[in-house]
Amino acid sequence: MTRKKIDTMQDLAGEIRVSRPTLSRYFQDPGTVSPRMREKIERGLSAVDYVPNFFAVQLARRGEGLVGIVIPSLTDVFQASMFEAAERALAERGHRLILQSSGNDVAGEDRAIDTLRSMNVNGILLAPVAAPNRLPRLREIVRSVPVVLIDSGVEGAEGYLDDVGIDNRQGIELILDYLIREGRNPVYLTMPCVNRNATERRAAYEAVMLENELEPRFVESGPPVGWNFEEYGYRTMARCFAEGRHVADTLICASDRIATGAMKAAHQFKLFQPGTRRFGIAGHDNDLLARFLHPGLTTVEQDLGRIAETAVEILLARVKDPAGASVPIRSRRIPGRLIVRESA
Amino acid sequence: MTRKKIDTMQDLAGEIRVSRPTLSRYFQDPGTVSPRMREKIERGLSAVDYVPNFFAVQLARRGEGLVGIVIPSLTDVFQASMFEAAERALAERGHRLILQSSGNDVAGEDRAIDTLRSMNVNGILLAPVAAPNRLPRLREIVRSVPVVLIDSGVEGAEGYLDDVGIDNRQGIELILDYLIREGRNPVYLTMPCVNRNATERRAAYEAVMLENELEPRFVESGPPVGWNFEEYGYRTMARCFAEGRHVADTLICASDRIATGAMKAAHQFKLFQPGTRRFGIAGHDNDLLARFLHPGLTTVEQDLGRIAETAVEILLARVKDPAGASVPIRSRRIPGRLIVRESA
Repeated sequence: MTRKKIDTMQDLAGEIRVSRPTLSRYFQDPGTVSPRMREKIERGLSAVDYVPNFFAVQLARRGEGLVGIVIPSLTDVFQASMFEAAERALAERGHRLILQSSGNDVAGEDRAIDTLRSMNVNGILLAPVAAPNRLPRLREIVRSVPVVLIDSGVEGAEGYLDDVGIDNRQGIELILDYLIREGRNPVYLTMPCVNRNATERRAAYEAVMLENELEPRFVESGPPVGWNFEEYGYRTMARCFAEGRHVADTLICASDRIATGAMKAAHQFKLFQPGTRRFGIAGHDNDLLARFLHPGLTTVEQDLGRIAETAVEILLARVKDPAGASVPIRSRRIPGRLIVRESA
Repeated sequence: MTRKKIDTMQDLAGEIRVSRPTLSRYFQDPGTVSPRMREKIERGLSAVDYVPNFFAVQLARRGEGLVGIVIPSLTDVFQASMFEAAERALAERGHRLILQSSGNDVAGEDRAIDTLRSMNVNGILLAPVAAPNRLPRLREIVRSVPVVLIDSGVEGAEGYLDDVGIDNRQGIELILDYLIREGRNPVYLTMPCVNRNATERRAAYEAVMLENELEPRFVESGPPVGWNFEEYGYRTMARCFAEGRHVADTLICASDRIATGAMKAAHQFKLFQPGTRRFGIAGHDNDLLARFLHPGLTTVEQDLGRIAETAVEILLARVKDPAGASVPIRSRRIPGRLIVRESA
């Protein structure tokens, strides 16, 4: 049976026989009306086809219960998984998450943040793009809305912006120690400098190699290809392999997506074929596809559930207490986990 | 320098010395104020830090310029690419797109649609989930807001719901004709019945095989694994290969993601190694990763740009003319393109 379509709250109040003010109190916070009244309203609602105006409700609530997230790219399976993890963490706390993509571009990030601010979101989870002189703008933003950086921090924002992400030093150390134990001497393929993770992972590689009295070596990487990391990894390594460089090395790639492209090049040059050479490759993230690659990719798994939970808890604490005295601002680094597969 | 923070339109009007009504006319439609006045307002705005309340503006506009899209899964790179294509097509027409995920679940789809309706979106692009007895609910929805189905149609909705997607018959025929010319006798690996594309592609395979006087053969597929198509393809084919079935066949998979899992199984059973056997595999979609697989995946490319453009044009036409007399309701089928790589 088709439910009667109701367009205004006035009509709805008449239809289910409660007063207009009671009804709007109910929509702003069901807890403010008596259980009997709530039961009556909900019975009435189930019998009609009525959707309260989202903007009217949000306007009344001043964005209460609404959180925004800005990610660089929706077609990045790791970023999409991070969004879903944050959505789950917020839903458990009665909040909804609104997604905006920055297109990995500063203007896009500004647009995304302005849209979220205009929605009066309680706070923003920001997976930031790397850009020079971004600090003044970020300072301005956090004065108007609580922001927690997720996935990557921002150079120089320590001390006034929370950030939650993987412990790059611990993660890189985990996989390097494993590879060195295996008698390998890993070369590092960095990622285009899209955010602070790029610099931190590179530095972690360098430090751990030196601690092991090994010489840090870096693949001479080609130009970035936007957010297309597979293409970047493929082009960079295809050029090296064509010149006979790194064909018997073990590569550590700054992300699984880069490793995916590098593996494609390695297959073209038949580097995975059994023989005397001992080519190997490892990635970072353990994104959803890493285990379906051939050979299965050895990598560092990011604990997205815990990263999202931590970021959401800090953000909601800042929302409750904008002065923020209760929560010290700092970097939260979540340990990664070593995943050993066939690739190295 | 830091711009002065302004919170209300009243303060803003005072700050930049224009009347409150003029200012709100400007925010609802800049075209309604004189060029000189607009110039004055915009100069003023650039000097202060003010963001008009999104919900107030949308409430005034009754959702004007706002379109919603519902997709089953954000971590599906094909679906994410479709979202980005739709976002581009709408931006060119001055509309913004709000994303909701259904989690490939009927309750989730209902929640997503209600949220979008509560935002007074002008219309909804819906990548529908397959479910029995969905038609009455869909009929109810299209009475309240224009809906265009994108990617997949819905069984039985022909005639009252537009749908835009690939021409499954043409696409499957393209790749089958190529494989048959290559002297192969393809076996079909269907996808879990998540939507009508599953049934259409299967039927197209059967029909084209019969037209070529070849016997249609289907892989006995395992249970679906939610929206995790790689896992489904991997488990299904690993079981077959372990029993010696299909090890010298050419598989046509209903999607690239299924082919990715099936290829992983084929590698484990060394089916791609040069020898007398002639195992082959083909996919469908040409998603962003197909070319980075090893071997490169032969597949049917979906023209996402054209699919999104077409869906957006029809939706906006329905918004303009809800009676809809001007636009006949029908299925728009966009031709696919054959992409030949090494896998078959």
